[in-house]
Amino acid sequence: MTDAERHLRADAARNVERIVRAAREVYADVGPDAPLEEIARRAGVGIRTLYRRFPHKEELIRAALDQSITEDLSPAIERALDDDNPLRGLTSLIEATLSMAAREHNTLAAAKNSGTLTAEVSAPFLDSLTLLTRRAQQASLIRADLVPDDVCRIMGMLTGVLWSMDHHSDGWRRYVTLILDALSPIGASPLPPAVPMQQEPQDGCWPMR
Amino acid sequence: MTDAERHLRADAARNVERIVRAAREVYADVGPDAPLEEIARRAGVGIRTLYRRFPHKEELIRAALDQSITEDLSPAIERALDDDNPLRGLTSLIEATLSMAAREHNTLAAAKNSGTLTAEVSAPFLDSLTLLTRRAQQASLIRADLVPDDVCRIMGMLTGVLWSMDHHSDGWRRYVTLILDALSPIGASPLPPAVPMQQEPQDGCWPMR
Repeated sequence: MTDAERHLRADAARNVERIVRAAREVYADVGPDAPLEEIARRAGVGIRTLYRRFPHKEELIRAALDQSITEDLSPAIERALDDDNPLRGLTSLIEATLSMAAREHNTLAAAKNSGTLTAEVSAPFLDSLTLLTRRAQQASLIRADLVPDDVCRIMGMLTGVLWSMDHHSDGWRRYVTLILDALSPIGASPLPPAVPMQQEPQDGCWPMR
Repeated sequence: MTDAERHLRADAARNVERIVRAAREVYADVGPDAPLEEIARRAGVGIRTLYRRFPHKEELIRAALDQSITEDLSPAIERALDDDNPLRGLTSLIEATLSMAAREHNTLAAAKNSGTLTAEVSAPFLDSLTLLTRRAQQASLIRADLVPDDVCRIMGMLTGVLWSMDHHSDGWRRYVTLILDALSPIGASPLPPAVPMQQEPQDGCWPMR
């Protein structure tokens, strides 16, 4: 590769990074239907550059989601799994997920609308939540009768409340506390049977409208 | 009024009742986008009779919802308010609401899609749930720190899980039990502050997609 080629590639990568970051900002400010022209403008690139990097809108939305997961959620997952108290780890990961879902609310809505909010998106943190739940159960810190589908549904219940509040608020914390009380082994009532998940498989645990 | 007029009116009322009941059945069997022709066929009336009684589809959907509320939810509300144990009353009304929402899932979805699922629809049972919550709080049967907006959001969390299961199952009972454990004063953690409801005012507590 010549120096000129290397320079071109680095330039292209910087453009992609800038466009994706601009997309997250514009979705947050304008809403899930924000026009691509506005994203190009915010990124400081021409609309043709944007289309060259992201021929389909879905690819840009998915890249925006992936960037936010890599930057915000992945470090939280690592920290949570390293916590020597699995309940504290579980709590911190639930909070990180809700915090990200609140901040990236419009990006998530855009992903939902465009069909790119697949189960694959939620798999990394859902698997970690399930693992932390099992560890906390083994340590008798949360009720023994929870199953993995409960974890998915509980995350759905929690992300569902985001629709009822200002996205800039952290009012969701109240419902995390309520749910953690529900998960406590103290005073736990016997649970009726768990039925299998039957939502659209692509939906994962995102109960988006 | 002549006998003939009386006869005609009774006939019209019977037709309306039959069409509305057929609509609920057809939505349940076929889905929220069921064609009006199918509803007319099931009711045993001509499509022109259906259009004469319900010039707009929204009116039929709303009538179907009202019929199901009158038949299923109103008696449950009365029984719950009459229960001398307010927690048992609250529990039975939550269960009746979820049971109705599961059974009438497609009618609710049709109402949501057509914009007729207004807050007005949920007001009667929501007011009763709030009243029963207050009574149960006064009897120290549920935690003292719940506010009315919590009741609305909790019902939203519970109806939200319906999307993840076969509508004919009563798998939602598991999450009612979990939530009732969350509402118990036993082992209740201090709650972060409640933030005001900010959803579309017409949405009520129905977190429909």
